[in-house]
Amino acid sequence: MTPKQESEFAARRPNALDRLITLFSKLPGIGKKSAGRIAYHILDNNPALAQTLANELAGLHQAIRRCSTCGGFTETDPCSVCSDPGRDHTIICVVEHAQDMRIIEESREFPGVYHVLGGLIAPLEGVGAGDLSIDKLIARIREADADRQVRELILALNPTVEGDTTSLYLQKLLKNFPVEITRLASGMPVGGNIEYIDKLTLSRSFRGRVKL
Amino acid sequence: MTPKQESEFAARRPNALDRLITLFSKLPGIGKKSAGRIAYHILDNNPALAQTLANELAGLHQAIRRCSTCGGFTETDPCSVCSDPGRDHTIICVVEHAQDMRIIEESREFPGVYHVLGGLIAPLEGVGAGDLSIDKLIARIREADADRQVRELILALNPTVEGDTTSLYLQKLLKNFPVEITRLASGMPVGGNIEYIDKLTLSRSFRGRVKL
Repeated sequence: MTPKQESEFAARRPNALDRLITLFSKLPGIGKKSAGRIAYHILDNNPALAQTLANELAGLHQAIRRCSTCGGFTETDPCSVCSDPGRDHTIICVVEHAQDMRIIEESREFPGVYHVLGGLIAPLEGVGAGDLSIDKLIARIREADADRQVRELILALNPTVEGDTTSLYLQKLLKNFPVEITRLASGMPVGGNIEYIDKLTLSRSFRGRVKL
Repeated sequence: MTPKQESEFAARRPNALDRLITLFSKLPGIGKKSAGRIAYHILDNNPALAQTLANELAGLHQAIRRCSTCGGFTETDPCSVCSDPGRDHTIICVVEHAQDMRIIEESREFPGVYHVLGGLIAPLEGVGAGDLSIDKLIARIREADADRQVRELILALNPTVEGDTTSLYLQKLLKNFPVEITRLASGMPVGGNIEYIDKLTLSRSFRGRVKL
């Protein structure tokens, strides 16, 4: 096939559809073929589906903000977990991403509150402790009201090199605080990702957490 | 956990995010966890990504229509394939869905034009020949200009019971027309789906097509 023919073939595809497929294929876990499947599904469907999706996406960043206490995504500030007097505010579960918080909430295993680090220490990728929400965590522990003194910090980080490095860093940093530091028990496959753990394994990890 | 606690847990999740995750999880090939991953990715990203996606989705059905000749999706009518004098209009490739047309175009194996049936004969699902774009196909063959007399019909349908039934039906219907009817060669795994075939296998199937 000559270059001229190639460009003709490329020119033949409808542009609006192409752009949508390209956008979808950049989302996590969606390859080029899946993106095509999704775009054609939306096109084949009632226009109301496309419109509803469009409206939700357009309003997303306005509706959802970061909780100023824990860093999780929320519609109200502070979020429903941080503002709930029924939660145990003396136990903070430290997670990498806001979505980890969602996964743990769905397992219904944890009665305390959260703190989202926003990442893990990864020197090779240029992410240092200063890039994470660690100062805020220290402030939360220091400035807690007398009846909400933090007594335990559960590090629910991925069991990877970065997760272990971050755990070690936090452990050293907090060694003079009257706070017990634990990490989730193994049961999580090493090298795995906290997002894909089944609820039962996650539940076992909470129960079997190990003191550092 | 009591029912009251359950409902509290459910109430804690932000609504706009929930709705988006539910919408995404209804798209083909996206499970609940993937939908969560995608929604958080969009939320973590620059709001421009959500806005671009929203705009593309909102404008999709207005920008893309069905080609009145072949039934494929297009921004212009007739589509760029049907209106291209460089294509061989004497060979029509019959496909189930418009997205099959895209896959075949990407393989750059086929110089002719297309006809989208819009489905396959499936008596168990209540889809009969009358529900498909077969009358239009017959009309295209009957009413072609003298220099564009259709001489071959390539049936590029999935090698499933429904695909074989539809092929057989078309073969009988067209047996008195001066048109050669072929189907894609095997090389496609039986019971598989035309959408997931690699380009090399698809190419081989075009070359080795078998006369019916």
